[in-house]
Amino acid sequence: MEIVLMDNLWVIIGTFLVLLMLGGFILLEAGSTRMKNAGHIAGKTIFTAGIGSLVFWAVGYGFIYGDGNWFIGMSNFFYGDSSFSGEGLSPAVDFMFQMMFALISLTIAFGGFAERAKLSAYVIFALLFSAVIYPVVAHWIWGGGWLADHGKQDFAGSTVVHLTGAMAALAATIILKPRIGKYNKDGSSNEIAGHNQVFTALGVLLLWVGWFGFNGASTFEVADAFFGFAILNTQLAAAAGAVAAMFVAWALTGKADVPTTLNGALAGLVAITAPAGFVDPWAAVVIGIIGGIIVVFSMKMFDKAKIDDPIFALSVHGVVGVWGTLANGLFTVPEYAFVGQAGLFYGGGFTQLGVQAMGVVTSGLYAFVVAFVILKIMDKVMGGIRVTEEEEIIGLDLSEHGGYGYPENIPHPSDKSGA
Amino acid sequence: MEIVLMDNLWVIIGTFLVLLMLGGFILLEAGSTRMKNAGHIAGKTIFTAGIGSLVFWAVGYGFIYGDGNWFIGMSNFFYGDSSFSGEGLSPAVDFMFQMMFALISLTIAFGGFAERAKLSAYVIFALLFSAVIYPVVAHWIWGGGWLADHGKQDFAGSTVVHLTGAMAALAATIILKPRIGKYNKDGSSNEIAGHNQVFTALGVLLLWVGWFGFNGASTFEVADAFFGFAILNTQLAAAAGAVAAMFVAWALTGKADVPTTLNGALAGLVAITAPAGFVDPWAAVVIGIIGGIIVVFSMKMFDKAKIDDPIFALSVHGVVGVWGTLANGLFTVPEYAFVGQAGLFYGGGFTQLGVQAMGVVTSGLYAFVVAFVILKIMDKVMGGIRVTEEEEIIGLDLSEHGGYGYPENIPHPSDKSGA
Amino acid sequence: MEIVLMDNLWVIIGTFLVLLMLGGFILLEAGSTRMKNAGHIAGKTIFTAGIGSLVFWAVGYGFIYGDGNWFIGMSNFFYGDSSFSGEGLSPAVDFMFQMMFALISLTIAFGGFAERAKLSAYVIFALLFSAVIYPVVAHWIWGGGWLADHGKQDFAGSTVVHLTGAMAALAATIILKPRIGKYNKDGSSNEIAGHNQVFTALGVLLLWVGWFGFNGASTFEVADAFFGFAILNTQLAAAAGAVAAMFVAWALTGKADVPTTLNGALAGLVAITAPAGFVDPWAAVVIGIIGGIIVVFSMKMFDKAKIDDPIFALSVHGVVGVWGTLANGLFTVPEYAFVGQAGLFYGGGFTQLGVQAMGVVTSGLYAFVVAFVILKIMDKVMGGIRVTEEEEIIGLDLSEHGGYGYPENIPHPSDKSGA
Repeated sequence: MEIVLMDNLWVIIGTFLVLLMLGGFILLEAGSTRMKNAGHIAGKTIFTAGIGSLVFWAVGYGFIYGDGNWFIGMSNFFYGDSSFSGEGLSPAVDFMFQMMFALISLTIAFGGFAERAKLSAYVIFALLFSAVIYPVVAHWIWGGGWLADHGKQDFAGSTVVHLTGAMAALAATIILKPRIGKYNKDGSSNEIAGHNQVFTALGVLLLWVGWFGFNGASTFEVADAFFGFAILNTQLAAAAGAVAAMFVAWALTGKADVPTTLNGALAGLVAITAPAGFVDPWAAVVIGIIGGIIVVFSMKMFDKAKIDDPIFALSVHGVVGVWGTLANGLFTVPEYAFVGQAGLFYGGGFTQLGVQAMGVVTSGLYAFVVAFVILKIMDKVMGGIRVTEEEEIIGLDLSEHGGYGYPENIPHPSDKSGA
Repeated sequence: MEIVLMDNLWVIIGTFLVLLMLGGFILLEAGSTRMKNAGHIAGKTIFTAGIGSLVFWAVGYGFIYGDGNWFIGMSNFFYGDSSFSGEGLSPAVDFMFQMMFALISLTIAFGGFAERAKLSAYVIFALLFSAVIYPVVAHWIWGGGWLADHGKQDFAGSTVVHLTGAMAALAATIILKPRIGKYNKDGSSNEIAGHNQVFTALGVLLLWVGWFGFNGASTFEVADAFFGFAILNTQLAAAAGAVAAMFVAWALTGKADVPTTLNGALAGLVAITAPAGFVDPWAAVVIGIIGGIIVVFSMKMFDKAKIDDPIFALSVHGVVGVWGTLANGLFTVPEYAFVGQAGLFYGGGFTQLGVQAMGVVTSGLYAFVVAFVILKIMDKVMGGIRVTEEEEIIGLDLSEHGGYGYPENIPHPSDKSGA
Repeated sequence: MEIVLMDNLWVIIGTFLVLLMLGGFILLEAGSTRMKNAGHIAGKTIFTAGIGSLVFWAVGYGFIYGDGNWFIGMSNFFYGDSSFSGEGLSPAVDFMFQMMFALISLTIAFGGFAERAKLSAYVIFALLFSAVIYPVVAHWIWGGGWLADHGKQDFAGSTVVHLTGAMAALAATIILKPRIGKYNKDGSSNEIAGHNQVFTALGVLLLWVGWFGFNGASTFEVADAFFGFAILNTQLAAAAGAVAAMFVAWALTGKADVPTTLNGALAGLVAITAPAGFVDPWAAVVIGIIGGIIVVFSMKMFDKAKIDDPIFALSVHGVVGVWGTLANGLFTVPEYAFVGQAGLFYGGGFTQLGVQAMGVVTSGLYAFVVAFVILKIMDKVMGGIRVTEEEEIIGLDLSEHGGYGYPENIPHPSDKSGA
């Protein structure tokens, strides 16, 4: 009994830490965008978390973990279980930890909406993403669906949480089109700098702390204190990602710009999310370094492709999420492979790599296609999911919420006094 | 022994989280007020926490939990116990968790002082609130006093912590009178917008995380992993409060303003504080929704009544604190009623509702009357507890602390250069 | 087995909290300095933590805890141990907790670099500090080195973490010389106010929360729930420090300035770090009060001595770190002295005080001398470790990273439009 209670304690601590990551995203997203949208961006994180929580309670959890088929679960709706059998996790503890992952994925998806989507689009997409996009992928890999049957390795959700969110973000950013002023007529692009790097840096730190719970508590138990090993790998990959991205940016541009360095740390964290408990520390360093390098070039690639990704969600969570998932197929150590098999570099051949690639392609495709279809329909039905040009220029704080988040820094357009 | 140590571990984790809530209040209060007062508001949270901690150590804990009578405890002053019997909570762990609640209540009370009270008023009131207001109510309900004897249900302190703080805030805001510029001669009111909604949103998120400890660790033990259930209810109520308040504001004004949405989340959290471990998840959703609706109308009501409540402490912690306490009398499930009885909707009749109402009225009245008398006396003795008009206009950062919290954004009045 | 797992759980929780302290430092340092350097200061905390982590992994941990001699450890490099014997801490958990201390010490050291050092100086010094300064002192006291043999008491690192960092900061601030505009030709000094006291206050709160893990988890076990006692002492000292510093500042200048009050809280925390588990609560209050008084006068002293210490690292972590270490020699209670002996006031005579003083002098001297030599060599080889006058004036955000952290608040020098 004692150990089981400790397992529950551990997972609820993980829950606290993953919720704290929402604070990290508030700062990361607000800091990476402009002042006129800051109140909107910070506030929407809270109310979309509210919507996501209620939907997850009503149907999401049931779609993931309910009894069902290879595609989806179909029980445990409107969850209300206070019982505890004394074995494994208490239903409420498990529910809470899983809910947090769904909220993080939703928040990542909204990265693609930044600075131009209508408030009503957030409301409706939060509902649908939490009901029919995230739960399906999570069911496939974690809920006993078809990818689970193939031995897909995803320790804490590089695919389920990060890639799913990023694919929805990609659909959104394609449909919404670039922000006004991002691209010039000659095809060149302008940097639209975020307004507060202290927010961004603190956001990354809070995400880093939260990731210890995200990855660490994904052991779901305290046995052998194995969580410490997953956390050690997490730390090394984050550190390696930050350092690699900084030096790459420095080498390429002569300046180690702050946002790139910070994205490097996040890239390391995203990359290690799938392999955290499967690989050796030296491999965690390598995985982090490669994540940190990839993210820099990915950011450039999307910029050139005229895909405007204000918060770099596509690169950090998408491209690097793929890298992390594939890294399992390369670096998984035989004795840590409690799911699936050893990686290529440990004599496992290409089998696991193939499973990982299949997981990435199918999950990513599902998330992208369903998000795209949903957003296209919303776009038609709602008369557009993007605010008007005038609204975008005055800022979403004013257009969507009736007042600026920084009213003393940004004069209200109706105020002619200049005070 | 092992389980007892786990109980202690759980409660000290709760202590960490409740202390983190002070960070949430720093951001919530600073973000909801103006730049010229921001350093003052942020800084006073730290030093009043310092005063409150020392007073709680010297006398507060003894007044609550010392051996005494129905009204007050009278031992355990200048607490210094490192011993641990091996049963229940270690004295130091229990002491720390209780101290955090006292600090939160104090911080709520200071919401009513915002943007116009003298620094010296904060110092003296911190002393007296921590000595003779909070401990008495806490003794009545948690320390074996007369309301405990009646089976008053208050899982984590809707009454003890939130209502007590809010009643003191009400006394303060009545005596201090509205801020300059809040009301016009014709009786209409102006909105005095807070300066930073990113702070406000992050503050709410930190409070949300901290509330998991506030409510969760109020189980005081890990048995049956029941904490998970209290936390699940907390999450659902917070989510429901945020969503409800947003839609109500949107419907009423055409704009889903950010501060109202954020206050909705807080309202859900305050509302579920008393019933967190007593009710079913569907009831938590209902309690949160009603909390989110109440808070919007309460904010309007106080505004019309010309009670200037800059940080909405009266609505969020007071009115909704009452709602939360009464909700027990409606929704308490028989098998969770380890104190008191089932609620009205579960066949318990009006008994528990009556006990809850009596608890609210007596606790609220005590806190209000004593705070009012103390502040009135302070007002006389100190030549006013409010700063001068000139000081209020230049801001309390300068008048009370000698320098602005944002010196690069607000030019010092003596600086004529405009730089 | 169960208790051992709980010990591991406790120390990994401590790890989370100490990492959160980096967030506190991001805010404290950014808030205490000017807007033009804010992105740089916040960002460098992340990437130097990255460098420090990798170096600690490669060699730092091995230098501290590897098998070696009285001076240094010499094994366990490139740490990669996932095993767990089932006794004591799992290697990975112990490693992570220790790494966090190294990162905090490094961050303290960089306090002395603020607003004028080159980015490349940060990179190189992060490497060398983490390899050859911190690990040596940590080995002496915690890793079985010569000071451990003498019974040096340092519960959680007043000497190892705080003094070591502060001595490196002192070396840096002497070599870097004061910031432009800090001292006038007549020898008088100007206050260069930090730009955001909300950041500073929240930073202190995050540090305070984190310190509960820093000191609390330095029990390394949950036995007797003794962590609660260490945390109680931590709380009382922090509170006493804040209150003492506020009143001293108020008495001296007529204004209770916010930064001084906040430094008082930090001083209380630093002071109690060495004695947290060795002294009685009343002594913790005394130690905190004296810490809060010392820090005010120390800040004045350094200012008069023309040692420009932007973030007050020398006073808060250095001078008060010494006080905390010596306080053990005065206040250690015989029955808590699991290392060393009782303090002077408890009949232990001057023995322990002497050991503490020797520890301070030797550790401080080592850290200062080695840091000074390293920085002097760097200064020669790198053609100066300080940015040019022009770079310092435009700000390090622009000179070192190519863009301001607050681009909407500070116009880029090349932008003549004023927008």
